[in-house]
Amino acid sequence: MAGWISGFTDGEGCFTISVIKNSTTRFGKQIFPEFVITQGEKSLDVLYKIKNYFNCGSIILNKRYDNHNEHLYRYCVRSISELQNKIIPFFEEYALQTYKRNDFKIFKRIIKLMIKKQHLTNEGWKKILKLASKTNRKKKRF
Amino acid sequence: MAGWISGFTDGEGCFTISVIKNSTTRFGKQIFPEFVITQGEKSLDVLYKIKNYFNCGSIILNKRYDNHNEHLYRYCVRSISELQNKIIPFFEEYALQTYKRNDFKIFKRIIKLMIKKQHLTNEGWKKILKLASKTNRKKKRF
Repeated sequence: MAGWISGFTDGEGCFTISVIKNSTTRFGKQIFPEFVITQGEKSLDVLYKIKNYFNCGSIILNKRYDNHNEHLYRYCVRSISELQNKIIPFFEEYALQTYKRNDFKIFKRIIKLMIKKQHLTNEGWKKILKLASKTNRKKKRF
Repeated sequence: MAGWISGFTDGEGCFTISVIKNSTTRFGKQIFPEFVITQGEKSLDVLYKIKNYFNCGSIILNKRYDNHNEHLYRYCVRSISELQNKIIPFFEEYALQTYKRNDFKIFKRIIKLMIKKQHLTNEGWKKILKLASKTNRKKKRF
């Protein structure tokens, strides 16, 4: 199962760092790291298999009303400690093979900084945004 | 690598059965089974890794001139004997987990019929088309 999850993540997964508005935080924004695997309804059962394997995260329905036949489901891990203790060690052992390996490396560095509360300092905040801009998703997410 | 390839195929691969025009064949058409994994240019190296692993197939450039940033590459295995002797035994051992498992089962049955030259008979031809219509790709390919 482990090798399969690594390959499936190279196909369908992503490591994203979003910046979302949050007026209760120091900078009025919040850094929001997330490990996500998206699937159509007909393969929803594999998302449950993956959730069971990692024993963390949740499955969220993204309803679609465009020309697609089925709704999308997202397996998401958002907890910093679960990312640090479950997701990151897994992908260190079962390495990604596509360009997503690079996104993962950056994601890992950002989680480390957040564990050390660096995102609460001016310097750390800038460092994280700079790192995040180097991921493959920068155009869409920043 | 094997588990990874199975997971990556569940994400990015497909087993297709196309019917293409070919005036030199008995029915004026030809049944064309293909195992394909498609990737953008930035992950071209993984297609070479997969090609090396299976020791068969070829990598073909699909140029794109739409709004995408990069060309696509397809790793394809089209030889009936290589599908039968290399690809099918691999996915029997390292099982797919998504709905593509069903496409694979149908694909396997069609390859078996073709190995027995059933596609050269009226009855076999119809049987193969009926089977192919049950794959997930029927709307696009038939």
